[in-house]
Amino acid sequence: MSKVSRRDFIKFGAVSVLATSGVYASDMPVFRDKDVKFDEEWDVVIIGSGFAGLAAGIKANERGNKVLILEKMGRVGGNSVINGGIFAVPNSELQKKNGVKDSKELFISDCVKAGLGLNHVELLGILADRAVDTFNFTVKHGAKYLDKLLLEGGHSVPRTYYTENTSGSGIVQPLAETFKNLQGCELRTRCKFDEFVTDENGAIVGVAVRNDYKFDKNLFSDDKENKSGERKFIKAKKGVVLASGGFCSDKFFRKLQDPRAVPEFDTTNHPGATAGALISALKVGALPVQIGWIQYIPYKCPDEKGNGITSKFASQAAFRYGISVDPKTGKRYMNELADRKIRADAMFRIIDAKNDSYPINLCDSVAAAKLVESDLANPMKNGVIMKFDTLADLAKHYKMPAGELEKTVERYNEFVKKGKDEDFDKPIKLTDGITISQAPFYAMRGAPKLHHTMGGVKINTKAQVLNIDDEPIKGLYAAGEVTGGTHGASRLGSCAILDCLTFGMIAGENI
Amino acid sequence: MSKVSRRDFIKFGAVSVLATSGVYASDMPVFRDKDVKFDEEWDVVIIGSGFAGLAAGIKANERGNKVLILEKMGRVGGNSVINGGIFAVPNSELQKKNGVKDSKELFISDCVKAGLGLNHVELLGILADRAVDTFNFTVKHGAKYLDKLLLEGGHSVPRTYYTENTSGSGIVQPLAETFKNLQGCELRTRCKFDEFVTDENGAIVGVAVRNDYKFDKNLFSDDKENKSGERKFIKAKKGVVLASGGFCSDKFFRKLQDPRAVPEFDTTNHPGATAGALISALKVGALPVQIGWIQYIPYKCPDEKGNGITSKFASQAAFRYGISVDPKTGKRYMNELADRKIRADAMFRIIDAKNDSYPINLCDSVAAAKLVESDLANPMKNGVIMKFDTLADLAKHYKMPAGELEKTVERYNEFVKKGKDEDFDKPIKLTDGITISQAPFYAMRGAPKLHHTMGGVKINTKAQVLNIDDEPIKGLYAAGEVTGGTHGASRLGSCAILDCLTFGMIAGENI
Repeated sequence: MSKVSRRDFIKFGAVSVLATSGVYASDMPVFRDKDVKFDEEWDVVIIGSGFAGLAAGIKANERGNKVLILEKMGRVGGNSVINGGIFAVPNSELQKKNGVKDSKELFISDCVKAGLGLNHVELLGILADRAVDTFNFTVKHGAKYLDKLLLEGGHSVPRTYYTENTSGSGIVQPLAETFKNLQGCELRTRCKFDEFVTDENGAIVGVAVRNDYKFDKNLFSDDKENKSGERKFIKAKKGVVLASGGFCSDKFFRKLQDPRAVPEFDTTNHPGATAGALISALKVGALPVQIGWIQYIPYKCPDEKGNGITSKFASQAAFRYGISVDPKTGKRYMNELADRKIRADAMFRIIDAKNDSYPINLCDSVAAAKLVESDLANPMKNGVIMKFDTLADLAKHYKMPAGELEKTVERYNEFVKKGKDEDFDKPIKLTDGITISQAPFYAMRGAPKLHHTMGGVKINTKAQVLNIDDEPIKGLYAAGEVTGGTHGASRLGSCAILDCLTFGMIAGENI
Repeated sequence: MSKVSRRDFIKFGAVSVLATSGVYASDMPVFRDKDVKFDEEWDVVIIGSGFAGLAAGIKANERGNKVLILEKMGRVGGNSVINGGIFAVPNSELQKKNGVKDSKELFISDCVKAGLGLNHVELLGILADRAVDTFNFTVKHGAKYLDKLLLEGGHSVPRTYYTENTSGSGIVQPLAETFKNLQGCELRTRCKFDEFVTDENGAIVGVAVRNDYKFDKNLFSDDKENKSGERKFIKAKKGVVLASGGFCSDKFFRKLQDPRAVPEFDTTNHPGATAGALISALKVGALPVQIGWIQYIPYKCPDEKGNGITSKFASQAAFRYGISVDPKTGKRYMNELADRKIRADAMFRIIDAKNDSYPINLCDSVAAAKLVESDLANPMKNGVIMKFDTLADLAKHYKMPAGELEKTVERYNEFVKKGKDEDFDKPIKLTDGITISQAPFYAMRGAPKLHHTMGGVKINTKAQVLNIDDEPIKGLYAAGEVTGGTHGASRLGSCAILDCLTFGMIAGENI
């Protein structure tokens, strides 16, 4: 160090048109500008067309930039378009109208509590400061919201808007329409970002992509195995925004970070949520933050794909008024009303995915009657929730020791009557005195599903990506789930939209 | 990808003797072999002289290699030499002699339980398979152990040896003596590893170091700020073993991964436990695994440096027979006998390090009398444990609301009498009916201290470092705390020695 100045560093020559830095023993090179011929040129290139990418694109164009958004899938919007459409806005107009007192401090403290104190609070502060502005940005571009606030789990006050169509598509679609109509901008689907192109100082000056890419969800690793498409190099005069989302669907990378997430495990994410773009950012020196943390949703079902339609039965009936048991023993193994992380961890301990053994969530007919009818009827039509006349039938169907299940139910019912769960300390008062007694009985197989990858690249409050020496990588910005640290160990529901949009906007403003 | 073959990659030319890959916008280059003049040449270079480095060095020499071990500090042994000297050996001879039934499966299951299921079990399997061999290796080279087994927390059976001198130095010193006497080997202190030297394919072929380095523990970041020493380049013909330990003392890097670990926080580690070598490995493409997880010890004191001498008072007297209170409120805030992680997390929530506000751990004289006398007397001489005639005096000294403290103690004493802690569910049966009643009262300020950084680079079962495409980086091996994944979220006590020595040996055998 003492003997080396920055100016001494290399401007190295190359013998190949498709040059790499040579640093990585990898089949995926980092490209050098002098060794590639750019096929096209834009001011700003954005990787990903979800909340973050679209917000970045519109904001960058407002500042006079020609913007290209790349989307590897055939459809726009990534996970954002299948998102549930709930959007936390601390200090909103609607809160004021409804007399809800909120504050930046309260918002941060809620997030930090859920995040187990691992949150990078300077980023949360930006979310609180910009939330109303971000919300108004979406309204201006055509998003519509219901005129009521939700109180989401972990939030101290009602601060969550709900899109009119109860989906993130209520925001993605108008933003995508806006963007597509902008002068000098393009949203290109089936265009796969592969690697960055850097200049001699490591600044990001472009991207290597493949046009006409066909994502293949049947591959173990689409990023590594899929050879489709035609290689092009795109220059990004002002820089690149990485808005590529998380990696819950990446069977290779997620298992390295959380070995419980075996390939057999499902996710609530769309199949394109892979780690390729994140890994490419690590190759150009982006600082990895908290990449080991993955958020799971415990009230999902392994017998249906993705989000599915059994969540309400699990969370509102079986977990609340019934029990979850290990089919190998017929016994309970957790407090069915603990927080998401505790429940997911407990379920992982008894699940044997390779042998297709999952916990059974069950309740009786009094509990099931608490549901909106379609939330029980539809999953029953699909056969993912089953009805049984006796507990013995239920046990037989799931290959459980019937005697043990009956003992478990008897013991649990005693706890409900006594008002105290002596085994797992479930808060019995929330069960409204409902036991597991009235036939028929309803049951489903349960599993946590991967929902959100908490870690990613480190950004500063300007959405600049920092390198492993904690300095901005010139020309590289990031926003949304591909970044790490903001939400710490666990993100509160309805904060994803706020995070993705806000840092997307900031990236677009600063690039 | 499709259009790029490995052979097309660059053999790039350079204009400077001190060349970098140019990929990183950093002041710390990765060096290319063709651009440096090597000052010396060894078969194997090892970074770090703790358990892992010494084991690697001896094993590599057994196979005929000339080995250089680099140690940046003035003394040998890093954290290993201040380690507590407890060494888990599943399936040991002493277990057999004592009729203790152990197994590979039981060892793995204990570790995975503590590690919250995040463990890379293939690495744990290697530890179980090799444990006896590793233990015998240390005995062969002069380590001595007490003839009894300890039952350490989280282990299902007694499987832990204790060095005769109750310190890791009982292993480090004989191994270091062995190594120093080996033909053609050298252990060089005050030699700082800075960066790797790679060949054109990214293989590790040497290191850039500084001789006559003087570590400065007063710098915020020694790795970034310290300019001492003289740059040399060392060729490593067969490769490099990274055995540089964890980063609990790195005020810069640890806070990025766990923002609770503010600079004011202390660690049980030696001051040289920084992230510089790990960061250099990330620069050559090493795959980061679970870097966000840090293990804390909750029964430490902010009023003494490092490990200190108050732990026994906190863990065996105040936490067990007394309480821990928040000085701002005079109230309890946790189950004082919860697991390490839960307690550390609870303490973090009330600590305000910037305003020097820490929880108070206290008990009465009956509780204090349970301690070995010196464990109370010595910290009292240093003034880190204080004695008070009344609870009011105690409250006054720590600027607590006295009335509130008295109410808290009264409420807690009721719980002890009833046999049930209605506030935090402390297992009252472990308090032996001891309340907080008999003056004098004893107290200390408490704080969790950083103990072990769980994450690091990914290795395979041959101790090869994997890159971000999951392939071995040629010429690069790693062992010990700088690696990640083996212990998941939390390492069991006494598994560090086993891990460091075993993978050190494996690195030395395979390089």
